[in-house]
Amino acid sequence: MPGAKPGTLSIAPDAVPTTIRVMAYDQDRVIEQDIDDPQELALLLGHWPVLWVDVVGLASEAKLRTIAEIFKIHPLALEDIVHVHQRAKVDPYDHNLFCVLRIPDDSNEQLTEQFSMVLGKNFLVTFQERPGDCFGLIRTGIRSERSAARQGVQPDYLAYRLIDAAIDAYFPLLEGIGDHLDRLDDRTIAAESRAAFAELHSVKRELLMLRRAIWPLRDALNELRRETTPFVTDAARVYLRDCYDHTVQLIDLLESYRDIAGDVRDFFLSSISNRMNEVMKTLTVISTIFLPLSFIASVYGMNFNTEVSKWNMPELNWRLGYPFALLLMVIVAGGMLLNFKRRGWLTGDPSREDHELAEDNETRRHGDKENRVRR
Amino acid sequence: MPGAKPGTLSIAPDAVPTTIRVMAYDQDRVIEQDIDDPQELALLLGHWPVLWVDVVGLASEAKLRTIAEIFKIHPLALEDIVHVHQRAKVDPYDHNLFCVLRIPDDSNEQLTEQFSMVLGKNFLVTFQERPGDCFGLIRTGIRSERSAARQGVQPDYLAYRLIDAAIDAYFPLLEGIGDHLDRLDDRTIAAESRAAFAELHSVKRELLMLRRAIWPLRDALNELRRETTPFVTDAARVYLRDCYDHTVQLIDLLESYRDIAGDVRDFFLSSISNRMNEVMKTLTVISTIFLPLSFIASVYGMNFNTEVSKWNMPELNWRLGYPFALLLMVIVAGGMLLNFKRRGWLTGDPSREDHELAEDNETRRHGDKENRVRR
Amino acid sequence: MPGAKPGTLSIAPDAVPTTIRVMAYDQDRVIEQDIDDPQELALLLGHWPVLWVDVVGLASEAKLRTIAEIFKIHPLALEDIVHVHQRAKVDPYDHNLFCVLRIPDDSNEQLTEQFSMVLGKNFLVTFQERPGDCFGLIRTGIRSERSAARQGVQPDYLAYRLIDAAIDAYFPLLEGIGDHLDRLDDRTIAAESRAAFAELHSVKRELLMLRRAIWPLRDALNELRRETTPFVTDAARVYLRDCYDHTVQLIDLLESYRDIAGDVRDFFLSSISNRMNEVMKTLTVISTIFLPLSFIASVYGMNFNTEVSKWNMPELNWRLGYPFALLLMVIVAGGMLLNFKRRGWLTGDPSREDHELAEDNETRRHGDKENRVRR
Amino acid sequence: MPGAKPGTLSIAPDAVPTTIRVMAYDQDRVIEQDIDDPQELALLLGHWPVLWVDVVGLASEAKLRTIAEIFKIHPLALEDIVHVHQRAKVDPYDHNLFCVLRIPDDSNEQLTEQFSMVLGKNFLVTFQERPGDCFGLIRTGIRSERSAARQGVQPDYLAYRLIDAAIDAYFPLLEGIGDHLDRLDDRTIAAESRAAFAELHSVKRELLMLRRAIWPLRDALNELRRETTPFVTDAARVYLRDCYDHTVQLIDLLESYRDIAGDVRDFFLSSISNRMNEVMKTLTVISTIFLPLSFIASVYGMNFNTEVSKWNMPELNWRLGYPFALLLMVIVAGGMLLNFKRRGWLTGDPSREDHELAEDNETRRHGDKENRVRR
Amino acid sequence: MPGAKPGTLSIAPDAVPTTIRVMAYDQDRVIEQDIDDPQELALLLGHWPVLWVDVVGLASEAKLRTIAEIFKIHPLALEDIVHVHQRAKVDPYDHNLFCVLRIPDDSNEQLTEQFSMVLGKNFLVTFQERPGDCFGLIRTGIRSERSAARQGVQPDYLAYRLIDAAIDAYFPLLEGIGDHLDRLDDRTIAAESRAAFAELHSVKRELLMLRRAIWPLRDALNELRRETTPFVTDAARVYLRDCYDHTVQLIDLLESYRDIAGDVRDFFLSSISNRMNEVMKTLTVISTIFLPLSFIASVYGMNFNTEVSKWNMPELNWRLGYPFALLLMVIVAGGMLLNFKRRGWLTGDPSREDHELAEDNETRRHGDKENRVRR
Repeated sequence: MPGAKPGTLSIAPDAVPTTIRVMAYDQDRVIEQDIDDPQELALLLGHWPVLWVDVVGLASEAKLRTIAEIFKIHPLALEDIVHVHQRAKVDPYDHNLFCVLRIPDDSNEQLTEQFSMVLGKNFLVTFQERPGDCFGLIRTGIRSERSAARQGVQPDYLAYRLIDAAIDAYFPLLEGIGDHLDRLDDRTIAAESRAAFAELHSVKRELLMLRRAIWPLRDALNELRRETTPFVTDAARVYLRDCYDHTVQLIDLLESYRDIAGDVRDFFLSSISNRMNEVMKTLTVISTIFLPLSFIASVYGMNFNTEVSKWNMPELNWRLGYPFALLLMVIVAGGMLLNFKRRGWLTGDPSREDHELAEDNETRRHGDKENRVRR
Repeated sequence: MPGAKPGTLSIAPDAVPTTIRVMAYDQDRVIEQDIDDPQELALLLGHWPVLWVDVVGLASEAKLRTIAEIFKIHPLALEDIVHVHQRAKVDPYDHNLFCVLRIPDDSNEQLTEQFSMVLGKNFLVTFQERPGDCFGLIRTGIRSERSAARQGVQPDYLAYRLIDAAIDAYFPLLEGIGDHLDRLDDRTIAAESRAAFAELHSVKRELLMLRRAIWPLRDALNELRRETTPFVTDAARVYLRDCYDHTVQLIDLLESYRDIAGDVRDFFLSSISNRMNEVMKTLTVISTIFLPLSFIASVYGMNFNTEVSKWNMPELNWRLGYPFALLLMVIVAGGMLLNFKRRGWLTGDPSREDHELAEDNETRRHGDKENRVRR
Repeated sequence: MPGAKPGTLSIAPDAVPTTIRVMAYDQDRVIEQDIDDPQELALLLGHWPVLWVDVVGLASEAKLRTIAEIFKIHPLALEDIVHVHQRAKVDPYDHNLFCVLRIPDDSNEQLTEQFSMVLGKNFLVTFQERPGDCFGLIRTGIRSERSAARQGVQPDYLAYRLIDAAIDAYFPLLEGIGDHLDRLDDRTIAAESRAAFAELHSVKRELLMLRRAIWPLRDALNELRRETTPFVTDAARVYLRDCYDHTVQLIDLLESYRDIAGDVRDFFLSSISNRMNEVMKTLTVISTIFLPLSFIASVYGMNFNTEVSKWNMPELNWRLGYPFALLLMVIVAGGMLLNFKRRGWLTGDPSREDHELAEDNETRRHGDKENRVRR
Repeated sequence: MPGAKPGTLSIAPDAVPTTIRVMAYDQDRVIEQDIDDPQELALLLGHWPVLWVDVVGLASEAKLRTIAEIFKIHPLALEDIVHVHQRAKVDPYDHNLFCVLRIPDDSNEQLTEQFSMVLGKNFLVTFQERPGDCFGLIRTGIRSERSAARQGVQPDYLAYRLIDAAIDAYFPLLEGIGDHLDRLDDRTIAAESRAAFAELHSVKRELLMLRRAIWPLRDALNELRRETTPFVTDAARVYLRDCYDHTVQLIDLLESYRDIAGDVRDFFLSSISNRMNEVMKTLTVISTIFLPLSFIASVYGMNFNTEVSKWNMPELNWRLGYPFALLLMVIVAGGMLLNFKRRGWLTGDPSREDHELAEDNETRRHGDKENRVRR
Repeated sequence: MPGAKPGTLSIAPDAVPTTIRVMAYDQDRVIEQDIDDPQELALLLGHWPVLWVDVVGLASEAKLRTIAEIFKIHPLALEDIVHVHQRAKVDPYDHNLFCVLRIPDDSNEQLTEQFSMVLGKNFLVTFQERPGDCFGLIRTGIRSERSAARQGVQPDYLAYRLIDAAIDAYFPLLEGIGDHLDRLDDRTIAAESRAAFAELHSVKRELLMLRRAIWPLRDALNELRRETTPFVTDAARVYLRDCYDHTVQLIDLLESYRDIAGDVRDFFLSSISNRMNEVMKTLTVISTIFLPLSFIASVYGMNFNTEVSKWNMPELNWRLGYPFALLLMVIVAGGMLLNFKRRGWLTGDPSREDHELAEDNETRRHGDKENRVRR
């Protein structure tokens, strides 16, 4: 539950055991080690221009508290670190800058996990819910590539690189959803199964989830970019503007997909209606033809006694009574068919209609292109 | 009715009798007592760093007026205290700061009750509509736990703790609604009963109620955080920012649930349409097969006199007349069935379709995961 | 028509004859009189701290012009006074402050009438379209109650009292609409008649009317509160903040009702669909059972000559032919019924479903309460 | 095409020949003349306090260029004058102030035409697409009425008068649409024809057209009012505030009509559904009654040989076989009818329902009024 | 993928080979040449007041890097140049101003391609994805027309000309969509085919694409106009305001088309419903007439033995039994028809209804015009 008070860190019951990995580097050296006792961090702090403490798993209250003490993390920030349903945000504190982001994580129903950062003068502490992240390339960069490390000998530049990687990791996710919507749209044109709509329904929910993760990101980055805090240098601000632009692009994509999902739904519902219309037309055509015919046959199936009087069903004894009845039926059926033809109800052949559709689309595309060229 | 004038406090007819409970504490001492005559409060005021007067029930105009006099509560604030349909707000007055919040209360159709606070230099007066609240833990904290009391020897910190508890109390309420929506969604997939839609309808109304309670909270907290009033210290402002963040999170959750409710409604309506489609297909298939068959049978049930001429229903006297008629029927029925098969109208078996749906979802999930991994 | 030019006051054709009533008071004295010749007002002006000129009916151009001259009302303001379709607004002029409000008036299709105020140093001139208003209590207060008059010996306080009364008069109107929506909602659950939808339609229009009256009120009050005009004292500003809060509350209520009306409409439409579904299921079940049965009966009603060959309808001469045919029919009907039962189409009994609904709601409520308590 | 470059004025192909009419006046004199050679304008300029050049028709590039030279109209402004699809806007230039408005024009599919104004120290040049405008009254005023001319001896006051007249000309247009919507709404209650919906569709498009004309007007007027330009005097600003208010009122009206159009559409669609429901009920009632009856009749029309055994249709030889069959039919039909009555499906008489509707509305209105009075 | 780091320019796999074309000019001279080795650009830079480097195709990393070095393009800007899914934006850097636009390109599914500009003191470098653009006229202008070149001897003026041409190129595209919507609307009135809806669906998607291209353009232009950068002169700012106005107009048009598309969809869906209604009415009328008639015929087709008793179907032996039965049928059918006529169900002739529609529209138009004239 959010907002528990200092003194009672309410750690989520399904939290993963805490592991701590440290990378510290300057222009010349890099060390990298797994640390078990967080007290060791106090020894490293201050001896490197950039100390990156990567905490994965939030189960151990004791470790988290020790880290918080060493890096002077505010109790409210610590609380937000373990309550893993935070929106992206930036909170400046006296001794450091606290950021929360959400990064994509497909092992999760919410599609994202919380990623918290505490940025200080010469350190960056990051907290993730679960192992497995999108920062592998950055670690490799720190280890080997001298150029990136040289540029990044500031913790704020490292923070930028992490934020940038997090934002970029959303793009394939969103594009996957976009492809999915396209496939659904195609399936809707082909045939409307209930399954397709259920799928659309779940895509919309995924978009909602991502929306809740991405929108606050924009505000947070904007704040980070504008925040007059000593922990972000002007050089890093230029890079953060770039992150901000990417987030706006993500939002753009997201909102477009939401619009498209709405359109696909509209199209889907209209397809159902169209289909129903087609079914009803078939029923109506068949009924309207055969009900009168059956009626005529029934009439001549009546058992009135023709011998009592000449008024009682004389047709039965006509020489051409049966051909007369059949002719009557043909006339009625033909009249009905003509009527339907005039109303255009007989074009219910779905394959032909689809064909028309395709042709029509073709025509339109060409037409449009010509339009565009012509102008 | 709101806005009645000074001199005529229009107390709600169903107001609960007023009881007054006082907690006063400094770093070393705590007293706690029920007070009957509000005049006693004047004796306590000023002798403790924090005096919390908790007024429950708003029926007694005399008591409320006495309290208002002792703590210099403005007539307009007093009016707002008894008109219990206020939105959350913050009104700074000369002698104190007046806040209105709404706290969850499930004994009520509106799901919330009004909670007013008057914050002064060394006191906090709170007003609730009914007994029963979400502040039990805070009272326990004041009584026993020395650490929390030590931190909270300011009335504004106590106010923060109360606001924070009020906001946190909304989370389980909203999560309950979220779970309810999930259950409704599942029921919609399984079968669409009218009851499920009525339930969805009432969930939407609950969300609307909560919306009216929570949105103003955000503005109020923002104002409280920015207000340059002597009654809120800078230390408390940091905590209020946290409350503000939680409220934004609540709003986020709330709006997501509203979106989801809209989606579930869409899905529900499309389910009805789909179902109707299925019903209509069945009717059409059955009618389209049996109407022509019945017609054929009717024809051979006609009573034309076969003895009058050889044109009158010679089939009746054919050796294989009956098998011929049956064959004709089989051909007609078979032709119709083929036609329906080609149109795909015979796949109306709902269990199979649902099965497909599940399978399909499975496939999609895998596909998505692969997509994500591939990139 | 709005915006006619000075020199041609375009008075509405259905305007009511103009009557003028004056109240003037200080702490000790009150006079109250009906005035026929507006020139008399010039004699009163300046001799009382508060002079309230209440003009009812806007038919007499001559009278209005004389009043405008005495109180230095700007031509544009005078124009707005007689064009009674203004939105609420505040226009500061050099010699006075001009406000337009709309007050509830149920004799009118628009549900409101225009109420204009001209506030000066020591006078308040008000204009109403028709007799009958919501200010009776205020007049009584001025006459007798010394306390209210003592407080209100400023024209701006009187203006506040009038605005406050106007805003409060909207609450019962809106609450009436809220109750109406609730009744409509109940009727929708019980049965969906066309009448209920038509009613909903007209409630939505009423809400739209009120919306146009209330939204601008908020902006006007905000402007009034912020306006740095000598005609509003700081003391009155505190009260105007209260009016502003009430207006925001009105808007809140109004928008909630609009949302609820939308929800009721959704629910209503889904009810129609559900009902249609039920009707269609009945038709389909009946048709699907009786069409095959009738077909079987028709087959054995054919007149093939059984004496020609043993292939021609030998069943007719079987000893148990008729029981055999009946058995066949029972088997077909039973098979169909089983099929429908499996699909759940036989639960179309509306009374039972409604019962379920009620029960279900009951369950849910209990469940929710438990949920809330549990947490 | 918009945005063509200086040097190539792309005049619309359907532009009307250019005519120029001049009015020049001071407090004492007025001259009014049609001018053929725009060079004559140079002679008038500077000799009158107000010189109004009214250019109608934009076909002659030469004339327009000459005017632009004389009055120092910026090339971009001249471009905007001939590209007649501009939104309302205000562009301050060094030598004059350029405004674009749209005025109602029913000879046009877009319902409006472009009206451009160039306001200088002592002149006002206006450009219209076509002859025929809403400024007749203003011209008459300049000619004869000394009072208006006296006030208006400034070009900015003249500009205000023109803007005001343009805005006022929208009111009857919008009110006409409002009346149309009301008529459509009434027709929807009476009967839902396809034509009514098509009409609603075109009303919505008209509203969209007007929306595009009116919304930018608000921004333009706001800018004009705030613009610190030497060409608008403070005295005129008071009047422009009035124009601004009227535009806001127009927007208000427009948006209300859009909401109403949406509501009428909803109501319309629900009417169709209701109607369909009624049709379906009739079909179902008839089918459900006559299908079983026909089945019974068919059974007793079977030709089983009653002489072969006593099991073969003994009813046929019962003394009361026929009455028994008829009784069976009556019982079945009666049972079905009872069932339908219980479900309320037999109240499909539309005239009665409409009657109920009217009555119901009546009741509601009364009830509402009582509600309002009661409070 | 966006946001790759410096050092690893992730060029799109389908990028086109890079070609470089240079135009450099002053008031008197123009040179124009294709350049293969970008190093040659360093020789030109600084020797001309305006150097336009037009880079088409983004496949060659080496060339792009060289250009970036010569013109001091920031690594982040270079990144954005090759990641061709950017939104329009303006990023000021120390040594130049970086802009991204999207220009129409119909060879592309997204309808647009990215167009980046780097504006410096005396150069403009532009990057396009593919050959073929809308700047032909500008190039011709630079070459021959001395007047335009004289005005444009500043790189910021050239940039304005390019932006203006890009914006203008959107108008025909949008107008094409507008025409398409009109055609679709007409087709919807004539008949509702599934194809028309599919087309509408794809038009909506095109609008969404364009929306994503055009909306950011507005913000970018606003920023460009306001940006206090040394690379844009005040003279160019006046022109950029014009570009901004055109973009607002584009957005206006776009949003109108989106509204219209929504309206067409509504109208379309209501057409389907109307059509379904008509189909259902036909079915119901036919069924309701022939089911009772068939029932009567079936009754007299029963085989009760009339010789057993006088109660068994005495009608069969009546002299006028058959005429009696026929009369009974005529009465039943006539009664049903009367009933339907009273309900107005017999006016289902679509041609007549359409005729009415057309007539009705005619009437309305006339009525409206009269309305407008009358006022």
